[in-house]
Amino acid sequence: MKMKIGICQLKVAEDVSVNLKRASDIIKTLAERGAEIVILPEMFCCPYDINLFPKYAQYAEESNSYFDFLSNMAKISNALLIGGSVPERYNGKIYNSSLIFDKNGRILAKHRKIHLFDVNIKGGIVFTESEEISPGDSLTVVKTDKINIGVGICYDVRFPELAVKMAEKGASLLVYPGAFNHITGPAHWELLARARALDAQSYVCMTAPALNEELVYKSYGHSILCDPWGNVKMRFGYEEEADIGVIDTAVIDKVRAELPVLNGRRPDIYRG
Amino acid sequence: MKMKIGICQLKVAEDVSVNLKRASDIIKTLAERGAEIVILPEMFCCPYDINLFPKYAQYAEESNSYFDFLSNMAKISNALLIGGSVPERYNGKIYNSSLIFDKNGRILAKHRKIHLFDVNIKGGIVFTESEEISPGDSLTVVKTDKINIGVGICYDVRFPELAVKMAEKGASLLVYPGAFNHITGPAHWELLARARALDAQSYVCMTAPALNEELVYKSYGHSILCDPWGNVKMRFGYEEEADIGVIDTAVIDKVRAELPVLNGRRPDIYRG
Repeated sequence: MKMKIGICQLKVAEDVSVNLKRASDIIKTLAERGAEIVILPEMFCCPYDINLFPKYAQYAEESNSYFDFLSNMAKISNALLIGGSVPERYNGKIYNSSLIFDKNGRILAKHRKIHLFDVNIKGGIVFTESEEISPGDSLTVVKTDKINIGVGICYDVRFPELAVKMAEKGASLLVYPGAFNHITGPAHWELLARARALDAQSYVCMTAPALNEELVYKSYGHSILCDPWGNVKMRFGYEEEADIGVIDTAVIDKVRAELPVLNGRRPDIYRG
Repeated sequence: MKMKIGICQLKVAEDVSVNLKRASDIIKTLAERGAEIVILPEMFCCPYDINLFPKYAQYAEESNSYFDFLSNMAKISNALLIGGSVPERYNGKIYNSSLIFDKNGRILAKHRKIHLFDVNIKGGIVFTESEEISPGDSLTVVKTDKINIGVGICYDVRFPELAVKMAEKGASLLVYPGAFNHITGPAHWELLARARALDAQSYVCMTAPALNEELVYKSYGHSILCDPWGNVKMRFGYEEEADIGVIDTAVIDKVRAELPVLNGRRPDIYRG
């Protein structure tokens, strides 16, 4: 069974209303082109900037919230919408959360980024996401009638055990909205996408904000779709772009039957 | 601290004595060049052919065995010797086993391949290693005064959980003697080496037999050394070749400090 997925590499700016308008336009365009699933980038609504998260964070219950926007867009586009991520305020904390809605606008799941981006690369980049963001405590697999979708956010992709566990729980499409930078992006972004595709014998889609030179954190862009054999099926550059990729469940079944890695695992050895 | 490791991509033939003579010559050459660790390929002593494993399999205790050969070569070369792998007969079964000796010729560890290569790729390759080989039941980390070495064999590299678990047990150099083929080799060999380097934040060395067109199973070759950042530090082609690579523990420490993936793991989520 084939499915069209719409991949959005939005150029995120400082103004939330501008970002939502861009997202709305692009989601509609992809829906018109037949996308059954639409995927937005990490922090599609605001700059990826720890100093700004408290300013931009919202409760899901607020009126005119990111929640309402995404729910409405899913309904309008008649597509399953994986809402990249947003800064979510909850119980005095802020999470980096991906809200996922069905085509009727009902929320299906919320993934809170588990692994926070705390790095200190000399001469490269220093970022301490955990100064403002709290970590999620559970993995997310969204079950639909066509495919089960595992969702992680950005740095979560560096953890193969999470990918394998999501596959174990039935996922065969892994979606990672992410925003790598100009150090780790060229070094690891595509490598990780392809590796997780092999590890989980699943399609992997990583969606980034386009590069915006005006923002403090400069996203690497390069949104990517890989098939379960590790082939790159679609790859963007730095600029804003959106396009339709195709997921074919027959390819998943074929790879898992021909090279039965998932079935050959030995958890008794790794998890002891 | 820097260490020289000798990587041997031997051209394996049908005749065991020829193979051992080639191995001996190359190990000595690498030792003369200062190798402190020498790594042989999977099935360096005989063709990688399930129909032939019963013919070539030996008990460790046999005189003039692979065991004796490797112990002696470790002593002669004054190097830690990771003996690729051999078909090991034990208790009525055959294992694909890597024998590891210290520079005094004392055995340090034996890794029995855990994940057997049972694949059926339409129009590509059919191989059912489990028809003749029994699987190992434990992981292997060899502790030395300079570095701890995790050892897997070939298909074991497809299992990221094993790599992470070896790192958890102290490994920062992962060695996988392996023999990919002309379907999975171009598709996955280098990708897996680089991915496991990132996953375990470790050096990864994969050593293959050179291509021998006269054998039934045609090895992809392409022995490779990657650093913990996923950079390829050494890469051979199809032909017989041997060379010295450098492992620098300062690089391991730097990567693990700057991008603390191993410390950021959440086993409570993956292993529940």
